[in-house]
Amino acid sequence: MYAIGIDIGGTSIKGAVVDDAGKVLTRFAMDVSKEADGEAEVNRFCDVMNKSLNDYDKSIKLEGIGIGMPGILDMDKGIVVTSPNLPKWNGLPISKLISKRMNLPVYINNDANVATLGEARFGSGKEYSNLIMLTLGTGVGGGIVINNHLYDGHLHMGAELGHMVIRVNGEPCGCGRRGCFEAYASATGLIRMTKKEMDKCPDSLMHEVAKENGKVNAKVVFEASRRGDKAAIRVMKRYVRYLGEGILNYCNIFRPEVVVLSGGVANEGDYLLDQVRRFMKNHNYGMKGSPIVELKVAMLGYDSGKIGAACLVFDK
Amino acid sequence: MYAIGIDIGGTSIKGAVVDDAGKVLTRFAMDVSKEADGEAEVNRFCDVMNKSLNDYDKSIKLEGIGIGMPGILDMDKGIVVTSPNLPKWNGLPISKLISKRMNLPVYINNDANVATLGEARFGSGKEYSNLIMLTLGTGVGGGIVINNHLYDGHLHMGAELGHMVIRVNGEPCGCGRRGCFEAYASATGLIRMTKKEMDKCPDSLMHEVAKENGKVNAKVVFEASRRGDKAAIRVMKRYVRYLGEGILNYCNIFRPEVVVLSGGVANEGDYLLDQVRRFMKNHNYGMKGSPIVELKVAMLGYDSGKIGAACLVFDK
Repeated sequence: MYAIGIDIGGTSIKGAVVDDAGKVLTRFAMDVSKEADGEAEVNRFCDVMNKSLNDYDKSIKLEGIGIGMPGILDMDKGIVVTSPNLPKWNGLPISKLISKRMNLPVYINNDANVATLGEARFGSGKEYSNLIMLTLGTGVGGGIVINNHLYDGHLHMGAELGHMVIRVNGEPCGCGRRGCFEAYASATGLIRMTKKEMDKCPDSLMHEVAKENGKVNAKVVFEASRRGDKAAIRVMKRYVRYLGEGILNYCNIFRPEVVVLSGGVANEGDYLLDQVRRFMKNHNYGMKGSPIVELKVAMLGYDSGKIGAACLVFDK
Repeated sequence: MYAIGIDIGGTSIKGAVVDDAGKVLTRFAMDVSKEADGEAEVNRFCDVMNKSLNDYDKSIKLEGIGIGMPGILDMDKGIVVTSPNLPKWNGLPISKLISKRMNLPVYINNDANVATLGEARFGSGKEYSNLIMLTLGTGVGGGIVINNHLYDGHLHMGAELGHMVIRVNGEPCGCGRRGCFEAYASATGLIRMTKKEMDKCPDSLMHEVAKENGKVNAKVVFEASRRGDKAAIRVMKRYVRYLGEGILNYCNIFRPEVVVLSGGVANEGDYLLDQVRRFMKNHNYGMKGSPIVELKVAMLGYDSGKIGAACLVFDK
């Protein structure tokens, strides 16, 4: 079985033909402009797709098209309600437009759910039926797979896993509440903690690493703490604590088999994960002898969105 | 369709014949002793059941027996792994024992899940497919119903909804972590907040109400704040904040249609719920225009466990 998976971001649209073993067969992409009309951009992408498919093996029968994109979507009707990064797409009946042009059924879901589905079917979650995925980026996105099915709540409006308060009255969050998991576990949260500690410790190696990097990003604290800098190690410990508390919350709520971390921070791999695993083990819900949940890094990288979008078709 | 629902507590076992409209037809009960052997107690309860059923309408055909009880259960095998309040039941193959005596299939699940199932099928959740139930008692128990199905996680070990940290490094919790929702939203948490404020405010009406009640219980702050006591109103506001933050977390994670509150504190009804509703409305996840989740009080009272246990049979 073959499907097209499309990953729409704020600056580009990427697509691929994906087979039902999760293999990416051919890729196509185009840049999008914030100023351009949504319908025109979608039509332009259909041209790109058609050209790419024409160049491609004709014997492949496509079953449909899946799309993952950020924003508020009416998934049942296939409409972009509002997309913060693509304001001229608001109200766009994207599924209908693409379906008409490509003569294929089209399914749409939000980017975090779609990436979770990709990892669940063909990535780090493929051996498990119950998983939570957390994407540690500018914010914290997430997805829930229960008994092999994506769960996104009533009206597809749940699974906002970054917006669980873990510190009442804590750091302000973009969602309007204070103390959300996202405000601590995101790269943004880590950078805030890093800067605060750097201000306190002018002798910290973090200053040097930041100078080498050209800026204070999430890598600074990892690099400096790997080199033994005490201030950086303190920041790491704090970050691991907050990340670990949030993950443990999801373990107690869902008791998944595995938690999969993706995004830039997760790419630090076992150096980060081993610290989080230690925290999780020490604070596991003990009274019930609950099994310790595995922690893994996502493995599909930038393809997770395209592969996951294709899974929307395979799952129908 | 008819089934027996059994609700095993730390001091008594209660059972009932329940029909598939959720109606309780006949009840039976016996006290249990902490010191008594589990198998002997179960056999004694089977005698009680048989006697009650003999006195009863013979035309009723029972489909099975459902059991709800606290502790760690092997639900698939029907074994009590450990039950903190009934230590001599540890290891008891309860389903097999009862099934043999009563010649009916037996299903077992934990008390919080079973009560949730009862409310979902026949109580305050009956019009909804997606709900969260929170029982505000000595601790905070909970249950999750997604698409009309009870969700209790991998190996039935999830849905520990009281053990989500909402204040990193906050009040100690019985589970070993600090700052759990249970430590704030339980009656125990409310009493702790009440006592703290009473210590600070020797003139508060709460002292008088506590004297009338004979002790500081969860009712003290409600009674005194209803009578306009400022210190009590402060405690109420704090409690509503913590309870509201936890409920909102579950709204963002699951976006259920309704959250059902049960337990002693919830019985304060709209005086409490209206304050929590206001908090929920003011802090609803706004960016996505998420629907505001309804908040209701459970309506089956002490029958929720028996009715929910019978639902374990009806759901098979």
